Amino acid sequence: MPYVTVKMLEGRTEDQKRALVEKVSEAVSETTGAPIENVTVFIEDMKKTDYGTKGKLFSDQ
Amino acid sequence: MPYVTVKMLEGRTEDQKRALVEKVSEAVSETTGAPIENVTVFIEDMKKTDYGTKGKLFSDQ
Amino acid sequence: MPYVTVKMLEGRTEDQKRALVEKVSEAVSETTGAPIENVTVFIEDMKKTDYGTKGKLFSDQ
Amino acid sequence: MPYVTVKMLEGRTEDQKRALVEKVSEAVSETTGAPIENVTVFIEDMKKTDYGTKGKLFSDQ
Amino acid sequence: MPYVTVKMLEGRTEDQKRALVEKVSEAVSETTGAPIENVTVFIEDMKKTDYGTKGKLFSDQ
Amino acid sequence: MPYVTVKMLEGRTEDQKRALVEKVSEAVSETTGAPIENVTVFIEDMKKTDYGTKGKLFSDQ
Repeated sequence: MPYVTVKMLEGRTEDQKRALVEKVSEAVSETTGAPIENVTVFIEDMKKTDYGTKGKLFSDQ
Repeated sequence: MPYVTVKMLEGRTEDQKRALVEKVSEAVSETTGAPIENVTVFIEDMKKTDYGTKGKLFSDQ
Repeated sequence: MPYVTVKMLEGRTEDQKRALVEKVSEAVSETTGAPIENVTVFIEDMKKTDYGTKGKLFSDQ
Repeated sequence: MPYVTVKMLEGRTEDQKRALVEKVSEAVSETTGAPIENVTVFIEDMKKTDYGTKGKLFSDQ
Repeated sequence: MPYVTVKMLEGRTEDQKRALVEKVSEAVSETTGAPIENVTVFIEDMKKTDYGTKGKLFSDQ
Repeated sequence: MPYVTVKMLEGRTEDQKRALVEKVSEAVSETTGAPIENVTVFIEDMKKTDYGTKGKLFSDQ
């Protein structure tokens, strides 16, 4: 542990995800004291039709 | 906040999801006192082969 | 199914949670076509020290 | 209840998922005392580009 | 991986949780082919006032 | 969006959580391009009796 989940709109490139895993793992390791070897990151892509705020689908905003 | 996640079998139309986000956001706002501007909804579609009850895959029931 | 999770700051009363479960279940049932008997709701209370936006803990905002 | 979520790399066959649901439901029922009729299992497939450990994407390891 | 989350009503003893982790990890390992060393289990206890079905809080049923 | 969840063993201080929210939000913003104003972080504390690896409860390891 720790286990990190990042939920975001789809469309990021593999390079962005690679950087995301690296930088988020470092940030978690530095602030919690857990070795980076123990940090796990999951990425969850969302579609614009599966996400809403203020009572409206994101694809309608 | 609040953050709402609705997990359901895939197959609902975009119109059903639009209505779902609207009506669920209203229900959460009314009962918690949070303004609807602050309510977020995530929808997660499940496949019938990724869901089971009573020890059996849903696609076999 | 469907399965609904509502994540919100702690402090709502049991009566508010009772109303939340009732109204959200009705909203999900009406918009997805699933019978209300099949709707499940989970509530997750968050502490102000376990939630942050804009780079800051909620308890500091 | 109980509700079980199994998150794993994509690629398992439907037969593996069928066996997974059966065996995990039995294990949960036996150890918690809940009847198997009440056990629900969700499966979540992950892509190798959506999962990282030790600061690196799994697809790079 | 795999990562397993078991969400259930609070009240199980530590011995039941110990058995749950052991038996569920074995079941996941046998059916997915992942070595048991790679299986992680999270347990989430729910209160009866944080769970509802059929439009009603569990504590009212 | 994005929405980040960090699940870790309980025991971190409020100062560590404050730093975690700040640094993780920055890392997510830099690598995804989302403004930090739009990043949300949830922290979930786990007990040692609610977490297991390799078939064993963490409290037994």
